[in-house]
Amino acid sequence: MARLWIAADWGTSNLRLWVLGPEGTVLAERASDRGMGQLAPDQFEGALLDLCADLLPEKGRTQVLICGMAGAKQGWCEAPYAATPCAPAGLAPVTAPTQDPRLVVRILPGVAQAAPPDVMRGEETQIAGFLAGAPDFDGTLCLPGTHTKWVRVQGGQIRQFRTLMTGEVFALLSQASVLRHSLGGEGWDDSAFEAGLAAGLHAPEGLLGDLFAIRSATLLRGTAPDAARARLSGLLIGAELSGAAAFWQDLPVEIIGSPALSARYEEALRAAGARVRLATAPDLALAGLRAAHARLT
Amino acid sequence: MARLWIAADWGTSNLRLWVLGPEGTVLAERASDRGMGQLAPDQFEGALLDLCADLLPEKGRTQVLICGMAGAKQGWCEAPYAATPCAPAGLAPVTAPTQDPRLVVRILPGVAQAAPPDVMRGEETQIAGFLAGAPDFDGTLCLPGTHTKWVRVQGGQIRQFRTLMTGEVFALLSQASVLRHSLGGEGWDDSAFEAGLAAGLHAPEGLLGDLFAIRSATLLRGTAPDAARARLSGLLIGAELSGAAAFWQDLPVEIIGSPALSARYEEALRAAGARVRLATAPDLALAGLRAAHARLT
Repeated sequence: MARLWIAADWGTSNLRLWVLGPEGTVLAERASDRGMGQLAPDQFEGALLDLCADLLPEKGRTQVLICGMAGAKQGWCEAPYAATPCAPAGLAPVTAPTQDPRLVVRILPGVAQAAPPDVMRGEETQIAGFLAGAPDFDGTLCLPGTHTKWVRVQGGQIRQFRTLMTGEVFALLSQASVLRHSLGGEGWDDSAFEAGLAAGLHAPEGLLGDLFAIRSATLLRGTAPDAARARLSGLLIGAELSGAAAFWQDLPVEIIGSPALSARYEEALRAAGARVRLATAPDLALAGLRAAHARLT
Repeated sequence: MARLWIAADWGTSNLRLWVLGPEGTVLAERASDRGMGQLAPDQFEGALLDLCADLLPEKGRTQVLICGMAGAKQGWCEAPYAATPCAPAGLAPVTAPTQDPRLVVRILPGVAQAAPPDVMRGEETQIAGFLAGAPDFDGTLCLPGTHTKWVRVQGGQIRQFRTLMTGEVFALLSQASVLRHSLGGEGWDDSAFEAGLAAGLHAPEGLLGDLFAIRSATLLRGTAPDAARARLSGLLIGAELSGAAAFWQDLPVEIIGSPALSARYEEALRAAGARVRLATAPDLALAGLRAAHARLT
């Protein structure tokens, strides 16, 4: 009988895994918050077993294939970066040290770009998953998040990419800066987003001043928290689009990410005149892990 | 006998006060960390008395003149903003409620600009102090800090100004973002500062990507923490100079601030081609409070 195997997407904050049958069926899907950020190297195996030991056959060894931050230097076992340009679906994994005789664990490398210096770990596997369904894609993939990635893809390869700290800067400013007094809540105001977007896109040099003006507008005009929050998001995404213009101005863009954030980026890109659509396939990380597993076995 | 009076600069984080004799002599100087940020309105009087009750004459009432965030809506007593253009030395104070019969407390207003919306509280008094020594100054004052102010001054008036969140963004990124793993310590690298400055000044749209590249450079090139920290500072100050260009490109600039930060801004402005010098008078807040007191008595 052909064996089951396990695919895992192990990021800084979370671990998601899928137990896959020989025909590719998903037998189980599990998740935990024991991300790489809170684990010492010798704690990864235990965290993995806590999540799936009950599903491991007692005889033989079960293959586990992992992507993401588990392969970072501070992770389970370093999987050195592949260099751009490279095919994200062709990256050779490293074998992680394990104690349990039921496991063989391999971790996929991330991708690095020499100049300007940039790195990714995990996104390359989502990109491989995307390319499994669209092998001839020629354009840009945008993966919005804490650290948004803009990735030029051509001929099945990652040609170049750029990471922008938009999401993390938004979180810090809205939670920990003086602007927190002006924001609050999870509300939204479309026209404030659009106005912020235009300012950020067309005058990105004004960003550090436009940020404080959010606070001043609250004090002087009583701007509502929803409008302040949407304007902050618009200013930052607008500045991001300005900085990433080479990735979207003359290229089709496909967005890969959570629905809410993807919709916001889609609106921003459309307003800026880009050709853009949302990638609709769910679980591109799993698709990329499947592609890597098929190649390796 | 002419009475003593008290001048106080009461900011968000600190309170500084000076007890002044009838001839203007500084009889005592005291400071506490009981800033406006940690006080409810009815706690200000106690915080003031804790710092100077032993110096108050038992008979009659001692004038206390305050500038800064004590006059904010969440402060001791709101001192509504004066509107630009205005002479910072001519602002009428409001009287704060007090219990102690020995005190008469007055708080100077801040200054607001309608468009783009902007506010200051405390800086206007430093500017008044500067103008007391240079009444004909025609140019820009730069007050670097958590929220750096660029202030166009002409004819003894604040004409317009702009606040940039450079200092707060630097603190958040270096202490709370992924970049904290790349920085650390208080070291410095001049050439990294200069390179960051040039990038921020000439390509401010790249800021959100240049920030993440600091982390990537550590991972890929082993960039030293000192260089990473100086580059971050350079990128942000460069982006600030780009956004504030109208304030320094064709105008003389005088910098008012702490020596270390002022020197960094001086270097940046000089590298950008500005005519710049450091304001040398100490305690401009006290000078501004003295000028206001003289006008009011």
